[in-house]
Amino acid sequence: MPALPSVDLKAHAADLFNIDAALTEEERAIRDTIRQFVDEKLIPVMGDCYVEGRFPDELIPELAELGVLGANLPEEYGCAGLSSVAYGLIMQELERGDSGIRSFASVQGALVMYPIFAFGSEEQKRHYLPKLAKAEYIGCFGLTEPDFGSNPSGMITRARQQADGSWILNGAKMWITNGSKAHVAVVWAKTGDSTDDSSIRGFIVPTDTPGFQARDQKGKLSLRASDTSELVLSDVHLPADAILPHSNGLKSPLMCLTQARYGISWGVLGAAMACLEEAVSYSKSRVMFDKPIGGFQIQQVRLADMFTELVKGQLVSLHLGRLKDAGNFTPVQVSLAKRNNCDIATNIARETRRLLGANGILAEYSAMRHMANLESVYTYEGTHDVHSLILGQALTGLSAFK
Amino acid sequence: MPALPSVDLKAHAADLFNIDAALTEEERAIRDTIRQFVDEKLIPVMGDCYVEGRFPDELIPELAELGVLGANLPEEYGCAGLSSVAYGLIMQELERGDSGIRSFASVQGALVMYPIFAFGSEEQKRHYLPKLAKAEYIGCFGLTEPDFGSNPSGMITRARQQADGSWILNGAKMWITNGSKAHVAVVWAKTGDSTDDSSIRGFIVPTDTPGFQARDQKGKLSLRASDTSELVLSDVHLPADAILPHSNGLKSPLMCLTQARYGISWGVLGAAMACLEEAVSYSKSRVMFDKPIGGFQIQQVRLADMFTELVKGQLVSLHLGRLKDAGNFTPVQVSLAKRNNCDIATNIARETRRLLGANGILAEYSAMRHMANLESVYTYEGTHDVHSLILGQALTGLSAFK
Amino acid sequence: MPALPSVDLKAHAADLFNIDAALTEEERAIRDTIRQFVDEKLIPVMGDCYVEGRFPDELIPELAELGVLGANLPEEYGCAGLSSVAYGLIMQELERGDSGIRSFASVQGALVMYPIFAFGSEEQKRHYLPKLAKAEYIGCFGLTEPDFGSNPSGMITRARQQADGSWILNGAKMWITNGSKAHVAVVWAKTGDSTDDSSIRGFIVPTDTPGFQARDQKGKLSLRASDTSELVLSDVHLPADAILPHSNGLKSPLMCLTQARYGISWGVLGAAMACLEEAVSYSKSRVMFDKPIGGFQIQQVRLADMFTELVKGQLVSLHLGRLKDAGNFTPVQVSLAKRNNCDIATNIARETRRLLGANGILAEYSAMRHMANLESVYTYEGTHDVHSLILGQALTGLSAFK
Amino acid sequence: MPALPSVDLKAHAADLFNIDAALTEEERAIRDTIRQFVDEKLIPVMGDCYVEGRFPDELIPELAELGVLGANLPEEYGCAGLSSVAYGLIMQELERGDSGIRSFASVQGALVMYPIFAFGSEEQKRHYLPKLAKAEYIGCFGLTEPDFGSNPSGMITRARQQADGSWILNGAKMWITNGSKAHVAVVWAKTGDSTDDSSIRGFIVPTDTPGFQARDQKGKLSLRASDTSELVLSDVHLPADAILPHSNGLKSPLMCLTQARYGISWGVLGAAMACLEEAVSYSKSRVMFDKPIGGFQIQQVRLADMFTELVKGQLVSLHLGRLKDAGNFTPVQVSLAKRNNCDIATNIARETRRLLGANGILAEYSAMRHMANLESVYTYEGTHDVHSLILGQALTGLSAFK
Repeated sequence: MPALPSVDLKAHAADLFNIDAALTEEERAIRDTIRQFVDEKLIPVMGDCYVEGRFPDELIPELAELGVLGANLPEEYGCAGLSSVAYGLIMQELERGDSGIRSFASVQGALVMYPIFAFGSEEQKRHYLPKLAKAEYIGCFGLTEPDFGSNPSGMITRARQQADGSWILNGAKMWITNGSKAHVAVVWAKTGDSTDDSSIRGFIVPTDTPGFQARDQKGKLSLRASDTSELVLSDVHLPADAILPHSNGLKSPLMCLTQARYGISWGVLGAAMACLEEAVSYSKSRVMFDKPIGGFQIQQVRLADMFTELVKGQLVSLHLGRLKDAGNFTPVQVSLAKRNNCDIATNIARETRRLLGANGILAEYSAMRHMANLESVYTYEGTHDVHSLILGQALTGLSAFK
Repeated sequence: MPALPSVDLKAHAADLFNIDAALTEEERAIRDTIRQFVDEKLIPVMGDCYVEGRFPDELIPELAELGVLGANLPEEYGCAGLSSVAYGLIMQELERGDSGIRSFASVQGALVMYPIFAFGSEEQKRHYLPKLAKAEYIGCFGLTEPDFGSNPSGMITRARQQADGSWILNGAKMWITNGSKAHVAVVWAKTGDSTDDSSIRGFIVPTDTPGFQARDQKGKLSLRASDTSELVLSDVHLPADAILPHSNGLKSPLMCLTQARYGISWGVLGAAMACLEEAVSYSKSRVMFDKPIGGFQIQQVRLADMFTELVKGQLVSLHLGRLKDAGNFTPVQVSLAKRNNCDIATNIARETRRLLGANGILAEYSAMRHMANLESVYTYEGTHDVHSLILGQALTGLSAFK
Repeated sequence: MPALPSVDLKAHAADLFNIDAALTEEERAIRDTIRQFVDEKLIPVMGDCYVEGRFPDELIPELAELGVLGANLPEEYGCAGLSSVAYGLIMQELERGDSGIRSFASVQGALVMYPIFAFGSEEQKRHYLPKLAKAEYIGCFGLTEPDFGSNPSGMITRARQQADGSWILNGAKMWITNGSKAHVAVVWAKTGDSTDDSSIRGFIVPTDTPGFQARDQKGKLSLRASDTSELVLSDVHLPADAILPHSNGLKSPLMCLTQARYGISWGVLGAAMACLEEAVSYSKSRVMFDKPIGGFQIQQVRLADMFTELVKGQLVSLHLGRLKDAGNFTPVQVSLAKRNNCDIATNIARETRRLLGANGILAEYSAMRHMANLESVYTYEGTHDVHSLILGQALTGLSAFK
Repeated sequence: MPALPSVDLKAHAADLFNIDAALTEEERAIRDTIRQFVDEKLIPVMGDCYVEGRFPDELIPELAELGVLGANLPEEYGCAGLSSVAYGLIMQELERGDSGIRSFASVQGALVMYPIFAFGSEEQKRHYLPKLAKAEYIGCFGLTEPDFGSNPSGMITRARQQADGSWILNGAKMWITNGSKAHVAVVWAKTGDSTDDSSIRGFIVPTDTPGFQARDQKGKLSLRASDTSELVLSDVHLPADAILPHSNGLKSPLMCLTQARYGISWGVLGAAMACLEEAVSYSKSRVMFDKPIGGFQIQQVRLADMFTELVKGQLVSLHLGRLKDAGNFTPVQVSLAKRNNCDIATNIARETRRLLGANGILAEYSAMRHMANLESVYTYEGTHDVHSLILGQALTGLSAFK
């Protein structure tokens, strides 16, 4: 396979529909900065990281320095204070590199920093947010439990308050990104004896607290460059002020998920962009029957479909970001974006892999890595099916979950 | 089947993703005016018009009065001078009624008035445009020929200039909307003896000129409320000034098609909206197994998919309209929008028909009428396949037409 | 559009996978006989019949003479006594002509003659079956009611037995094929005061009985060459022996549906074959960009997909027929075949229509007629969705209907 | 995740359409023997093999003993002499385990033993076939070259005959299954100075011949339990009798591919069966919102679609096998089967993975492993696109390859 041509195919394929015209100059500048980092530092190592099953820890400091962690939170807490659209573009660029890297940033920003920002005390914010923004602390988010993937209200983990106001936590969490490298976990638990959703509260748990244990999940065939763990909490004692004081029932972690899903809707577009760019580039250089395969109708239809789906996904996330920045977006809208964009990204990755023929199974190219990664993203933070039912309920006024 | 509930389901289903937030107040007002006309005057008669195979001629004066004909052309020529986005919203609303009505308006505005505006002399513009805007004249557009549907450069129709500067036209045109009711036809012909694209010029042909004949095409199972004709030109003599002086090669009629396709991209969204609204409404009122079918997962997935595709189509056309108003859109972008939106609209119509069960085959509901109509729209003004190859060429730089 | 070439494309396109090798010589001979009738008598008139909305009554005698009515019932009752596979091939050939014609034959054979055969007294069999086989009587089947399309157990029609043993029927039936031309209706009703399924019995109702009324359903955009009626039964008095004595609860009409669905699974393959043959033929003769469109990759993929789906549908019905002839088939298997074959046939019809471009909307070609017809077939005798849930239940052991 | 229930779900899900009724008792017995081996020996180790990227060499002797290698070749050469259908069922069962294992057997049987049987001298047959059947020798097949994946006639590898009748081979081959473990390679090369297809001949190359080198391909994200190598031949000297004397032009290796594709069409059904069984089993045991997810409509539709596609694929391969055993099948028919079955198998694997939610990314389950493997199978031995064009050509008589 000869080297891909060096002309700037990316800009061409990625913006024939001129999405850039709907971005501000600042937004484009932020995106381009992260893009350069991803192109120069991340992509060159991702194939090997994926095969080896390791997260590129060595790049965390630069990620922090670039301001990507909690980038939409205020500057007064050491964050970049960016708009939702700019934040989304950052997620997009990171996932052009790898879904595992974007997942790392999503968890740190939307699932650890955001709840501390939204539900934490001023002391908690001042202590944790700057450290998390700088990646001095890595965080993880403990909501999902083994038997309650799509139904968090079934949660079993329990926090019992002691006479002295301190807490004891018991339970197990699963599918926890960053779990084994985290310094701090935001853990959700039912409090008291209630089995009701409304008793759910969040807790900040230093991961070196006795009784806290994280175990790597083995045998993953997706997100191999991301750490995924099970958490076990056995009589984990926490001080009274470990609770997030403004967290209040199941709706609090769901608000975090809404933040994270928003970022995911952008992120997967990045994976799709990487694939489309690879597909276009390959189609122009790979010769079969004496011409580049990009000159055959079958491949042109494939590329046209991929490009169209990508463009539409970009418009969805951009519109959503504008609504969010206007203080006016709904979880249902986020469901639409997360569901659609994961769906089209998985298809784009698969079609790219197929366009690449036998080469498409190699880690040297990005298509199959993205294709495998995106299956996780398709499933986590609300599966496709769950979001179908959220949309269905919004459209009909009728619940069909049970 | 009980009457559908009277509550305003339309607004709900049609804008859960808050596309309205991206429209100006004026744009929404224009849209709502046309919507009211369509809901009150057009939709109540369309089922019967369709079954009877007749265009609702009685509504033409009000269409003209509402300013929908050539709505984006300047006020100095008797037109409404609206933005491209407002124009698009009008097309959307008309096609909520019926694709045939929107086709009528598209032909009049984008394929008759636009070329006179863009390629005509000042005299032609002053004479024709106000009359066309007021529907005193109905126009048609003669480009397609029987054997050259997707390849207009194969055109055989010929205009030969006489010694006195006058012209004689000979040829045949096919699939001509409004052909049998038109007062004036914009006809494209090769000039002189050239077989080259560059010899193509446009002519304004009064349809009462001797030698001009329009024959209705029989047996249509789509666009039954629209007139479709074959045109035959046998030694049609025209004065020297019948030519559109600034028309110049194949690119001139292609510019008209770009205008029309832009409007189509919006129009089919209207058909899709009508279907989705019908589907949502039906799903809430139709009871099976003791509950509204909208409460079943299968129907919710169907509705979620339809809604998502509609939203994306809307964002595509809106983004395109903004680019067009900024003087900055490309034919390739129009191809993407026309291709995608026709595709999703046909699917939405079919899924609605299916959700409606047996009732879905009746003209009393709109789904099957839209489903049948949209097959024509899918095909005309560049088939899906042709636009695939336009996109493929833009993405790869390689032509795969032949 | 030049005439299609006269070479025998049909055999080629229809049997590249050599399905014929799995048929007996007799089965092929029966099929070929019906095929000839359909090609010579039926297809030439169907376009006009469809546009005019009329059933070709003039062909009924020849249909009867060919033995297609109740063809799988025993010779002792004046029927042809054919195998299930031969019966299926007949349905296939009829629907190559039009779904309305096959529907006529399905109703007569599987929904009128079959229940009389299976649940009737010897007297009823000897009286009715030969007359129905010869089309001296036309029959219809009254099961579906306006509000219980997919849930026949909700039936409201009621038969009350009088002191003298005679019956009085009241109720309404909808979507009744042949309703307005029938001499005799097989009507299903709950008996006594029971609301239970088990009280359902069948009755033979001469349509000239006072109180029996059939009204044509207007505004159909599908099956336009088929009669579809509403039936109203107002105090319809029937003698005691009008009941089908061996009918016994809802399972009896469901057994009829199983017979009919089996035939449908074959029938729609015929419509699909007609479309594929039209598509192949058109693709070889229609020239665009200086070559037959069949030589372009886009069309070859379309044809390859259509052909593959057709072949698979054929194998499904053939395997099912062999099981049926071995006395060993299940309603779930019939659901699979009906559901799949309707689905692929509607897709094949749509793709053919699209391949035909603008010509594809004309009744002169068969694609759009089949496309519209098949929407009814997709829906009747158990919608696609209902059969999904039947299959789902069989696979999981869990019911998801409610 | 609790253990899956121990009841025999497999038989249930796999044969609701009673495909078994079309098999002979002997065929079922052979299948069940291999199934038992796969269930007991292969499946328990495949997850680990895949993660570790190793072929389970320890199972090769038992594979040989079971007679699966070249199972359809005659007993006189030490093979099992089975019918094509029985051979297909064996491939199906092996790929229920893993596509890599089936690939191993396909290469050994269809690409090494078959050409020696079909094109070899009696001496070659007597020497090699029994050893290959017993796995004393492992073989590989060298046809594909780096730049000629879908176009083998572009082959560059060259065999030049010396004055003494011996041969010198030079060239490179890629994507060679079993390459690094093979004792013997069947290598295809152009002979003399010809660039013509007709000069292609096959050679038996002992892999310890100086100049022969096999290099493992690294970074595979598919078929990780299979060895895939590049071969380099640098002045490889072979005796005069190394040539397969009856090989004769490109059609000889294409005949091998037809054999292999036939087996693949069966094999991928096995992967699909494994997935469907896993999906059904999981859906019955995984509880969400207080009931097994198999009781939700969304999952039932998914299962119904998967099952229907599987059934159709099974009928395709079975019909093809019957034709093959009757000495009457065509490469086009094999293309249909290979293309369709790979396509549906990849979809079934993906849908299973999604039904399994987060668990679906783990090697502990088989869905994602099969999903990744099948991408290779989709591509090798003629990509989906190449087979589309083979079918398109057969249907239209027109070539669209170039």
